[in-house]
Amino acid sequence: MSKKLTKRTEDYSKWYNELVVKADLAENSAVRGCMVIKPYGFAIWEKMQAELDRMFKETGHENAYFPLFVPKSLFEAEEKNAEGFAKECAVVTHYRLQNDPDNEGKLRVDPEAKLEEELVVRPTSEAIIWNTYKGWIQSYRDLPLLINQWANVVRWEMRTRLFLRTAEFLWQEGHTAHATRTEAITEAKQMQDVYAEFAENFMAMPVVKGVKSDSERFAGAEDTYTIEALMQDGKALQAGTSHFLGQNFAKAFDVKYTSKEGKQEYVWATSWGVSTRLIGGLIMTHSDDNGLVLPPKLAPIQVVIVPIYKNDEQLDAISEKVNVIVKDLRKKGISVKFDDRDTFRPGAKFAEYELKGVPVRIAIGNRDLENGTLEIARRDTFEKQIVSQVDVVSFIENLLEEIQENLFTKAIDYRKEYTTVVDDFKEFKKAIKKGGFVSAHWDGTEETEDRIKEYTKATIRCIPNDAIEEEGVCVLTGNPSSKRVLFAKAY
Amino acid sequence: MSKKLTKRTEDYSKWYNELVVKADLAENSAVRGCMVIKPYGFAIWEKMQAELDRMFKETGHENAYFPLFVPKSLFEAEEKNAEGFAKECAVVTHYRLQNDPDNEGKLRVDPEAKLEEELVVRPTSEAIIWNTYKGWIQSYRDLPLLINQWANVVRWEMRTRLFLRTAEFLWQEGHTAHATRTEAITEAKQMQDVYAEFAENFMAMPVVKGVKSDSERFAGAEDTYTIEALMQDGKALQAGTSHFLGQNFAKAFDVKYTSKEGKQEYVWATSWGVSTRLIGGLIMTHSDDNGLVLPPKLAPIQVVIVPIYKNDEQLDAISEKVNVIVKDLRKKGISVKFDDRDTFRPGAKFAEYELKGVPVRIAIGNRDLENGTLEIARRDTFEKQIVSQVDVVSFIENLLEEIQENLFTKAIDYRKEYTTVVDDFKEFKKAIKKGGFVSAHWDGTEETEDRIKEYTKATIRCIPNDAIEEEGVCVLTGNPSSKRVLFAKAY
Repeated sequence: MSKKLTKRTEDYSKWYNELVVKADLAENSAVRGCMVIKPYGFAIWEKMQAELDRMFKETGHENAYFPLFVPKSLFEAEEKNAEGFAKECAVVTHYRLQNDPDNEGKLRVDPEAKLEEELVVRPTSEAIIWNTYKGWIQSYRDLPLLINQWANVVRWEMRTRLFLRTAEFLWQEGHTAHATRTEAITEAKQMQDVYAEFAENFMAMPVVKGVKSDSERFAGAEDTYTIEALMQDGKALQAGTSHFLGQNFAKAFDVKYTSKEGKQEYVWATSWGVSTRLIGGLIMTHSDDNGLVLPPKLAPIQVVIVPIYKNDEQLDAISEKVNVIVKDLRKKGISVKFDDRDTFRPGAKFAEYELKGVPVRIAIGNRDLENGTLEIARRDTFEKQIVSQVDVVSFIENLLEEIQENLFTKAIDYRKEYTTVVDDFKEFKKAIKKGGFVSAHWDGTEETEDRIKEYTKATIRCIPNDAIEEEGVCVLTGNPSSKRVLFAKAY
Repeated sequence: MSKKLTKRTEDYSKWYNELVVKADLAENSAVRGCMVIKPYGFAIWEKMQAELDRMFKETGHENAYFPLFVPKSLFEAEEKNAEGFAKECAVVTHYRLQNDPDNEGKLRVDPEAKLEEELVVRPTSEAIIWNTYKGWIQSYRDLPLLINQWANVVRWEMRTRLFLRTAEFLWQEGHTAHATRTEAITEAKQMQDVYAEFAENFMAMPVVKGVKSDSERFAGAEDTYTIEALMQDGKALQAGTSHFLGQNFAKAFDVKYTSKEGKQEYVWATSWGVSTRLIGGLIMTHSDDNGLVLPPKLAPIQVVIVPIYKNDEQLDAISEKVNVIVKDLRKKGISVKFDDRDTFRPGAKFAEYELKGVPVRIAIGNRDLENGTLEIARRDTFEKQIVSQVDVVSFIENLLEEIQENLFTKAIDYRKEYTTVVDDFKEFKKAIKKGGFVSAHWDGTEETEDRIKEYTKATIRCIPNDAIEEEGVCVLTGNPSSKRVLFAKAY
């Protein structure tokens, strides 16, 4: 298999698919729409999980685990939830296979083993969790209930793409219950902030924080807070959402608490989630025609060391030096790989780590041993530098920070270049065609939103949190508007 | 709900169920046989995961993720696998619900949305993983392939018990591929050692390492290495298994590699797993009539501090002192909770943490402030001691180690008391009735094994790794035998 990727300018979508497979991140499986996350891709997810989990715990949340299956009737309890999710889903109807009497060596579903009630493989867990919370919440003392779950979920998507949209995916889903409306809204907004901080500080992916329009928000929610990122092809990616659910689920599942004053009240709810889709966002924010580019804070391997040698004697001498460096770097918490495989030449190794987005590559040869030097190459800019071996640890520490910052700055610059403020529909169409975010006035109606989508394929990504009040007119209808919203074509 | 548990001597099984629910570990869900793992129970699982994951990585394994669903035909590929697992399982037959035209507000399965091939919710992942490995393994350079997955699996059990046997459970499953038979056997045995080390050093649960008899081993395996623990009611618990799979899966899924010599060879396989069942084992090894007893290394809260005060002024003075102690303990990596809730009295708090198995409880009142002391109570022995505040950190550090050791020693002693060596069938039946492991000669036939099971409900737990060669005769048939095996009734 050639390691060479299709160029992004040629076919962005093809480039993406090739990169995911060739960089050993994921691949399609024998099951329609379900992916296999390969060890290197999964290591990125583990790094994401570790940081997010820490952030959730620091904000007072605990993890728990709820069943994979949701009885059909629980979906019926919350009508909008059913509208939103319970439709395209995997349904378990039977609980046994048996040897097929008509077909030796084959299995068939045992027709006798039919479930009384069908079970839906969870597309999201509000229904099963709120049905459980009913038993956990009696008094104001039981609130707030701040719970998160790391889990797999299944939505029967017809058109799937690795990481971005798959039938099964991994995610976390927070589900919280509160005594007051204000507290629940504060929680939902806090988690939007946590997601934004994670996206920007760890993924080096700038995001716009905002709220969804009526037609784009989660069906069971009163408000959906979102973080929206801009990909290299000018399309937006919804990277995480946090929902203020009002009392919808509390009412559907009859979850009440006794207040300090002794009154029975319905609780207020939030839910919030990010998924393996973030890996897609990570790829499409930083990578290039040579392959993956990873921000150091999420790179499974931050530094790779490749020895350049002609014989075993040289390799031994190099290894002795490298082992000391590896130890010193690891002491600083830097993850280093010394690739001394003799089955591949240095050039092949360089190409492999470039494709896999390892932020820093160190090459060390015979002459370096003599001079007490190393050659250090950065993945993001391809710059190379000769560095003294004695300075290597502090140099690498600084370099990793610099790369992290540089990736974020580049992404911010790109977003600036591809955010257009427009005031009429002709400009609007031009800006959408160019790609990126388009900031425009909108009259606030779903009808206008739909028509704009029909004409341009662009949707309202969000009403930004930092949108200022200003008088204007809707780009499409000319009706009055008081705030600009952000449009884009989206994944 | 009363916090008081049924006594173990009265009804062990009832005691267990009550403890799991009252100590906030888990509960039954709305889905038959599926449990909800509550935050406190899940925190124990997270601690287990963290240690096991570290041990897996230290032995060279990487994590990955494979699909939840297994197409039915993949089970048919490996006949024994199908025999063993593909029978009692959740089967997805449809991919859509729709509004029921005959029943407003209800959902029904869309009869048009029938899958061409049924999907089985994975009971274990050998089939889907080996179908994937086919694409990953070409050359000896691709071997060994050392992969682990943390996942949920589903087996349609008719009689379920929280943690011990549930339809859905959480586990890890390692799946490795090797160039040689010897290497695969070494791997399978290594993972048995890893499991034993984890069980003994972290869970403080002694285990016997051994190999399963033909009838007790995993259907697709050539050998199943097991760790067997003894519960307080005299029944054995299979706590983890590691399988040497030979070339069964390689042949079923046609996974070959080109050797250094250029020959095409089938690879050799292992798989190994432990599950949330371990939490059941943990409970039934250490806990008592007052509730859970946790070994410090797996306790989510190692130390709880309860203030004893009469007014806010006293609480403030105590809190000031406690905050310093909490900080000092945390610096040493000890997890501490300061429970200053004013909604519960100290006595209620004491009972709660006893029920939840927190290893060490510190009480601090006004007189302690005056004397510079604390009252420290251990959960395992109920011993209390007055300790000087200045010594508290080192005292607690030592105490946690001592508790960890004490639990292990007690469990070892119990196992010694309940391991009986017998040489005839009358003694055998008596020993099985008493409970515990029974070490006896067996003629090596499945028929004898079955008859013993029929007469006594005892099964062969394993042929211990350290069994010595000795001449003897089978307790049932009198036929010659060269090794003792371990019998017990089992979970």
